[in-house]
Amino acid sequence: MRILWVLAHPDPASLNGKLRDAVVPRLRGLGHDVVESDLYRMGFDPVLSTADLLGDPPAPGTPVSDWQRTGHETGRLSADIRAEQAKILGSDLLVLQFPLWWYGVPAILKGWIDRTLVNGFAFGVTDPATGRVRKFGDGGLAGRRGLAVVSAGDRTGALGPRGISGHIDDVLWPVLHGTFHYTGTAPLPAHLLSSVHHWPGGQFEREVGRLVERVHGAGSEAPIPYRTLAGGDYGEDYALRPEISPGLTGNEAHLTRLPRG
Amino acid sequence: MRILWVLAHPDPASLNGKLRDAVVPRLRGLGHDVVESDLYRMGFDPVLSTADLLGDPPAPGTPVSDWQRTGHETGRLSADIRAEQAKILGSDLLVLQFPLWWYGVPAILKGWIDRTLVNGFAFGVTDPATGRVRKFGDGGLAGRRGLAVVSAGDRTGALGPRGISGHIDDVLWPVLHGTFHYTGTAPLPAHLLSSVHHWPGGQFEREVGRLVERVHGAGSEAPIPYRTLAGGDYGEDYALRPEISPGLTGNEAHLTRLPRG
Repeated sequence: MRILWVLAHPDPASLNGKLRDAVVPRLRGLGHDVVESDLYRMGFDPVLSTADLLGDPPAPGTPVSDWQRTGHETGRLSADIRAEQAKILGSDLLVLQFPLWWYGVPAILKGWIDRTLVNGFAFGVTDPATGRVRKFGDGGLAGRRGLAVVSAGDRTGALGPRGISGHIDDVLWPVLHGTFHYTGTAPLPAHLLSSVHHWPGGQFEREVGRLVERVHGAGSEAPIPYRTLAGGDYGEDYALRPEISPGLTGNEAHLTRLPRG
Repeated sequence: MRILWVLAHPDPASLNGKLRDAVVPRLRGLGHDVVESDLYRMGFDPVLSTADLLGDPPAPGTPVSDWQRTGHETGRLSADIRAEQAKILGSDLLVLQFPLWWYGVPAILKGWIDRTLVNGFAFGVTDPATGRVRKFGDGGLAGRRGLAVVSAGDRTGALGPRGISGHIDDVLWPVLHGTFHYTGTAPLPAHLLSSVHHWPGGQFEREVGRLVERVHGAGSEAPIPYRTLAGGDYGEDYALRPEISPGLTGNEAHLTRLPRG
């Protein structure tokens, strides 16, 4: 597979840094083509601003999504954004590797998403045949898969189906559903490394093996079965039709198959 | 009330900028003491790094949470972080105002959370009487309330209980539960402004009034009834005890009262 591996950790000597150092060469050894965006090493700027648009700045009050689209369509997005977009387009699998900070992605990775996945590129694309906007199960990034590789201090149970922190797939809902699924990137269940400050001897090596195996097989793994907009389960108000997941509310209502792991 | 108002939008002429301009003076007129952190205007740096620790850098491989705690306890966190912490401590209500980007907070606000709410300050504090860690309903920020004021292009139904984007309180779970509730900040239901690109005439003024009223009454509003760690609903594995919300999984299992709005 052609893999884009995005890493968001400030310390190369951290667990995440060491994991990347161990896993990426092994994946290359297995024949995968791995391109990397090590956001801290690159000094990636996560702050979306009108400086992202080269040339004349947008008129004050222009919606961000509008001038981002203009920038994309006219080739006026800044070079760092265009470079990341090209890496995404050249990938079959997008891996986001990060420590779970405040139950989400580190700011540098959130900004990579904010600045790179612009209107007209990742979303806001229309099917010329139907005139419908392609989103939630389809979109500008359709044809690829997404995997979040996330390390947490929390113990496994805390991030399980009834865990105090919330199920990891609910915690990462904004990434798995709101970013991957929204753009047509097939979302794989999150790859969780838990209790990372309390690993016994040998655990690191086992986790390296588990992650290599997971990514190596990612091309044939079943994605999270989120309902799609095109599938007809949602009405004109963008809410589930009454006969779909009847009586259910919450994230699980948007799955075609329960229970989840 | 003493209010800390944190705004995260790059454009002062945006809807969010105009809303802040209209609402904050009216709140002051009502007698509230409003302190502001306009993150873009401040040029706030959202990238957590070892530069946050003044003096000798931490040894490579030191967990982030550990050296942040050291920095806090020894007064060695950088000045911008300490200034934000002082503003938080001086507030009864923390308002986070932001546009919903990729179903979460903009990177500049995520970084404000990542860098400011460090171990030993917002979490990782122990009850000296019991020796137990205070979190989920208690913590370093106990005694204050939190309100997310969020603008979205999505229509209201898309962010409702059965909406395609997920219920706004599930979308914001990492903020409402994972940040506010986790640190002891009582989480109020999110204040949602939807369909912001399609407001009819007069809607802006109505929304200003609705937000002023909401914040003015925030001191007596019922918070989201998330279960607390100290309340005994969770076992030693940090999962819900079998007799609590029996058979339920997902975020709603962590509420003491259903249904939600």
